[in-house]
Amino acid sequence: MKIYILGAGAIGSLFGGLLANAGEDVLLIGRDPHVSAINEKGLKIVGIKDLNVKVEATTRVPEEKPDLIVLATKSYSTIEALKSARHIVKGSWVLSIQNGIGNEDKIIEFGGKAIGGITTNGAMVEAPGVIKWTGKGVTIIGLYPQGKEKFIEKVADVFNSADIETHVSENIISWIWAKAIVNSAINPIGTLLEVKNKVIRENDFLLSMAMEVVKEGCRVALQNGIEFDVPPMDLFFQTLEQTRENYNSMLQDIWRGKKTEVDYINGKIVEYAKAVNLEAPMNLLLWGLIKGKEALEGKK
Amino acid sequence: MKIYILGAGAIGSLFGGLLANAGEDVLLIGRDPHVSAINEKGLKIVGIKDLNVKVEATTRVPEEKPDLIVLATKSYSTIEALKSARHIVKGSWVLSIQNGIGNEDKIIEFGGKAIGGITTNGAMVEAPGVIKWTGKGVTIIGLYPQGKEKFIEKVADVFNSADIETHVSENIISWIWAKAIVNSAINPIGTLLEVKNKVIRENDFLLSMAMEVVKEGCRVALQNGIEFDVPPMDLFFQTLEQTRENYNSMLQDIWRGKKTEVDYINGKIVEYAKAVNLEAPMNLLLWGLIKGKEALEGKK
Repeated sequence: MKIYILGAGAIGSLFGGLLANAGEDVLLIGRDPHVSAINEKGLKIVGIKDLNVKVEATTRVPEEKPDLIVLATKSYSTIEALKSARHIVKGSWVLSIQNGIGNEDKIIEFGGKAIGGITTNGAMVEAPGVIKWTGKGVTIIGLYPQGKEKFIEKVADVFNSADIETHVSENIISWIWAKAIVNSAINPIGTLLEVKNKVIRENDFLLSMAMEVVKEGCRVALQNGIEFDVPPMDLFFQTLEQTRENYNSMLQDIWRGKKTEVDYINGKIVEYAKAVNLEAPMNLLLWGLIKGKEALEGKK
Repeated sequence: MKIYILGAGAIGSLFGGLLANAGEDVLLIGRDPHVSAINEKGLKIVGIKDLNVKVEATTRVPEEKPDLIVLATKSYSTIEALKSARHIVKGSWVLSIQNGIGNEDKIIEFGGKAIGGITTNGAMVEAPGVIKWTGKGVTIIGLYPQGKEKFIEKVADVFNSADIETHVSENIISWIWAKAIVNSAINPIGTLLEVKNKVIRENDFLLSMAMEVVKEGCRVALQNGIEFDVPPMDLFFQTLEQTRENYNSMLQDIWRGKKTEVDYINGKIVEYAKAVNLEAPMNLLLWGLIKGKEALEGKK
């Protein structure tokens, strides 16, 4: 399958590398110096697996269309990425494996056929050309917002053959919301207190507050017509358990002076609350405090 | 006037010292080593004024009643203090100059005649026997919850003669709430971000979140029948302006490994919301995050 990875950061490069390693025709679209390093020395994957993969990389979006575009930028770069790839997105299958709510809607606005996705795989860029696979997780994909489609089964087969454990859901929008709700509780609280995820599990006050935030997100989702296959509260506890020793990605972004994805997590929940005349005061407060913290670290 | 200061911490010692300096018959009731230092070398006040005051101090509550008891402990020590002074509180005038909501109700439960009070004076214990008067503010007192009373006018005269600028309000409960609402917004936000008060004024996100918290507190107050003389939002901006360079007291408590007064500020607002079937989710969240932070610093 001819696959473009649009946004060859940590998770995009990991997926692209694993797919190329399995023999798929992959092109990583990213930024220098990561792209140059890959073209010179190949892509190195360390951690869960150790691989050296020969894979093509570029900083410029090609003219011809692939079979599948995997959108893997940070959520705040989605529009920029889709603009740069406008000519190949239109009419193509585009799979988002990003965090947060709303990325698939942007794909549709740009004329793409949207496949929603979430993944619990963990990865980080260790150096240009070197990706550390920090946690083996699962990926769920599905026709966005809901439904089924032969091509998506095929994508899942290709992913599974490449050691990316992938399941297909006919209700992918609910998984996207569920992941966002879990992140809306864990990430800002972990970021404000600057603690590992296990601290939220072990501190009664933080745990009960995080649970309140999950409940608030669920109310907003339900009023927006989302029906969950698995209750977000269950995923919340699973995630806390599986990521005990992690500092969440929002905190890592803050520490690295990068912008966070809070606008697409808590910010979107606030937005969707307003749309149905609900309020989401806890999400609003967490959103504002993280935006404040972000600004204080002098980043943008 | 014979005055006992019950809780000779920073603000209690400051008031007691100024009153003794003006010739009032003052007894400071506090803890060692502060009490011993005062008995050995007198009470030293530095900062706004420099004074060396000869004033009596003790760790034990006397048997005979004074004309006025000034309750100046931290709010979490109110019940313990009233218990230790039960025999003199009953039937006596007791003025609370503490932070938070509910102290005066406790005075009434113990049979005292409650005078409510708030003060914007700033003080800290610099060493045993040494108090730094860090900010000259005003004090408002009044019959609790509302009304007027000759004796309270007399107390105000005594305070004013001692250089403690004091006004009398016939609606003191509204001032107690207003101060608590202002603190409910500034203190936890400043504590979570570990910033000076001016940062809340200057960061658009933090300012708008703090304003939302003030509004939530006002809704709870109004539903509980509180009518404000001055809108808490005005006091909020005044306070931010007057305390620009300060780290708020909650943050200072956390840094010093002490318990905070969050239960009597945000915690009380949540409690009073429930009492009238309202919710106060922002206050609840701030309360829980501060309780979590308190526990993490390993303090109690």
